[in-house]
Amino acid sequence: MATGMALPAAATERPLTAAETDPVTLGWMQGFPPPPERVIGQPDSDYFSFPKLRWTVCHFRELLPTRRVSRGLEAPRPLPYALDKGIDSVTFSPLGGGEPMSWEASLAANYTDGILVLHEGKVVYERYAGCLDEAGVHGAMSVTKSLTGLLAEILVAEGALDETARVASILPELADSAFSNASVQQVMEMTAGLAFSEDYADPDAEIWSYNAAASPLPKSEGYEGPRSYYEYLATVQPAGIHGEVFGYRTVNSDALGWIISRTTGRSVADLLSERLWQPMGAEQDAYYTVDSIGTPFAGGGLSAGLRDLARLGQLVLDGGQLNGERLFPQAAVQRIRQGGSRDAFARAGYATLPGGSYRGMWWVLHNDHGALAARGVHGQTIYIDPTARMVIVRFASHPVAGNAANDPTSLPAYQALAEYLMARE
Amino acid sequence: MATGMALPAAATERPLTAAETDPVTLGWMQGFPPPPERVIGQPDSDYFSFPKLRWTVCHFRELLPTRRVSRGLEAPRPLPYALDKGIDSVTFSPLGGGEPMSWEASLAANYTDGILVLHEGKVVYERYAGCLDEAGVHGAMSVTKSLTGLLAEILVAEGALDETARVASILPELADSAFSNASVQQVMEMTAGLAFSEDYADPDAEIWSYNAAASPLPKSEGYEGPRSYYEYLATVQPAGIHGEVFGYRTVNSDALGWIISRTTGRSVADLLSERLWQPMGAEQDAYYTVDSIGTPFAGGGLSAGLRDLARLGQLVLDGGQLNGERLFPQAAVQRIRQGGSRDAFARAGYATLPGGSYRGMWWVLHNDHGALAARGVHGQTIYIDPTARMVIVRFASHPVAGNAANDPTSLPAYQALAEYLMARE
Repeated sequence: MATGMALPAAATERPLTAAETDPVTLGWMQGFPPPPERVIGQPDSDYFSFPKLRWTVCHFRELLPTRRVSRGLEAPRPLPYALDKGIDSVTFSPLGGGEPMSWEASLAANYTDGILVLHEGKVVYERYAGCLDEAGVHGAMSVTKSLTGLLAEILVAEGALDETARVASILPELADSAFSNASVQQVMEMTAGLAFSEDYADPDAEIWSYNAAASPLPKSEGYEGPRSYYEYLATVQPAGIHGEVFGYRTVNSDALGWIISRTTGRSVADLLSERLWQPMGAEQDAYYTVDSIGTPFAGGGLSAGLRDLARLGQLVLDGGQLNGERLFPQAAVQRIRQGGSRDAFARAGYATLPGGSYRGMWWVLHNDHGALAARGVHGQTIYIDPTARMVIVRFASHPVAGNAANDPTSLPAYQALAEYLMARE
Repeated sequence: MATGMALPAAATERPLTAAETDPVTLGWMQGFPPPPERVIGQPDSDYFSFPKLRWTVCHFRELLPTRRVSRGLEAPRPLPYALDKGIDSVTFSPLGGGEPMSWEASLAANYTDGILVLHEGKVVYERYAGCLDEAGVHGAMSVTKSLTGLLAEILVAEGALDETARVASILPELADSAFSNASVQQVMEMTAGLAFSEDYADPDAEIWSYNAAASPLPKSEGYEGPRSYYEYLATVQPAGIHGEVFGYRTVNSDALGWIISRTTGRSVADLLSERLWQPMGAEQDAYYTVDSIGTPFAGGGLSAGLRDLARLGQLVLDGGQLNGERLFPQAAVQRIRQGGSRDAFARAGYATLPGGSYRGMWWVLHNDHGALAARGVHGQTIYIDPTARMVIVRFASHPVAGNAANDPTSLPAYQALAEYLMARE
């Protein structure tokens, strides 16, 4: 048992590796009780610091109230398998130079906890590491936004939601906020002009007051701020002009979640279950973290099984069809694949996604293969390559909160794998 | 929509009825956001007061951190159905006199949220009400104890746990507590001599300090007491002589959960999944509430689906066999059915269970049919009648915290139904 071992000393030259921070090896929460220095508990506000976060990403529900996304009661739909042992040896050149790297080596480099590749609808690759196994769930972080966006695009395609409507016409509670005269589409493309910083390095950034409002735990004595996602959204102030610049701000996703719920009478958790999780034959329930009034965190609160995210990715690739049955209008995916304003996106300066755009809360690469992706802050992704008929889903717990840290050893790996799979045919 | 309606005025002559307190009709947590007077949230410590508890029993995970009991990834094992419409008309005489009552009328009288009857392994009756439906889960409360006890009896029957061992020989941490020289069997039969009152009407009762220790939420400023189930158990003081009197104290179940985990290296949540939930083909994950270090509440924290509790009850009735496969030694159930000390039980004075006993954390009625039961504080039960080959599982949210309030209109109903089903044959 490794429960009593000391943490590896922090290296000054490099971050601790995936192997050095393996949550099983480090012994977090092992033993009855775990040794005090290996407890990750709720009063410990430090549970999302690295390397603890490598345990926490699989255990949010043990720390926070959550709301279920039911898979229903039916048997799961099996995923067909056609594993390809050659994939580990696929090599690629990392962005920005560096030695060629194998697919297999990229997994540890990116602190991968689970990765599954579908080609032509069949599982060709599947690996688990860290805190995750096939029967577990993992925090999807901002991949959640893309599911919120997909639900909204489905409602738009079905005519239930008018993307040209002003937000305040749907949510009068936001009439005095920056969202008021933004269109639903601007919220969905994150071009609403909002004074909201997600710079975690800035103690005055709005993300901190947002987190405080969102916490379902009792507020600290004397707390006078907003007490839910909805209350917070009503306080967001304007900055800039709607529609001009892409600004990646989580509040857009939570405003969209609210728009969805007001429109459908369903929480996003229930709507995700009814529209996608149950019909696609998910094998595990998923869940959302919630605020003090039970609102699911539509901007980042989802935890799900890897295979179920793969089922979702395949459904998007197939334009809403599953085994010949149509689950939602093809237009919902077509709209996302067209992309959003590339000009607005270019002004935001994402170095690893040149020429890209953002639409329906998906990242559209506008590359030769027409790839699109859902992306989470520690390296989570649903990466869909329509040309290669490939879906990659990955859970990860990278020490750096930002995809610029893992894109150099993941985006070119995905492209190389797509080319490998296409060349097999 | 009823979200804005006033609560019915409290009747002075009678408690509010099931219909008057239906959580859907009352509109708890409906709307985006729900109206403030209809919010049941975590900072609201009142969430388990009646009638709010009629919503809360289906939603513990939305208020508290929880740990999953995985059903695994396979297809659920279907329950065979042979519904009998005659059951609603079965009549019985409530204990203590009163007019004859129909089975159907007893459901509302007992604030039943879900009830399912198996006869000869087939579902003959199934109803849902209040907050529950077939795809939901409900708090099992002290029914949880019987699952903890069953796991322990399985370990005893398999030779992994010595019931004659003193607790401190397994858990040295309890050497200075009242548990120290109690035997495992005395813990399992709740005859350990413990100074622990569960009288919720007494503000000095130990149950309050136990609840404070068990809460996963941040402690109040200046709190100096124990911070987990395990820390609390080490503080329990002796009272009386081990083995003499049955004393229904939840701390026994949590001590037993700790014994199980120390013995097997598994949390009770994982062991329940591995030994029972997965092999029996559960159709839903269950979950436990947890304390600040992630320990599942073995004394009352389980929420589960009604049909899954029925699968478990049938497995107990069948002595551990399922479709010809043996999941655990028959001796585990035989030991429970033999019962515990009837003398020790008689000294505790349970008026509605004369001649009964308690063994392996199950209530043994020692009636003509050899019935045994798991029982939760608001009317939850797994009631097993081996003579009638009948299993009844019930979730309920009775306003009175104690089975003496619902036994008069449930125990004779169960007996009448057993006789009805036997007479059909």
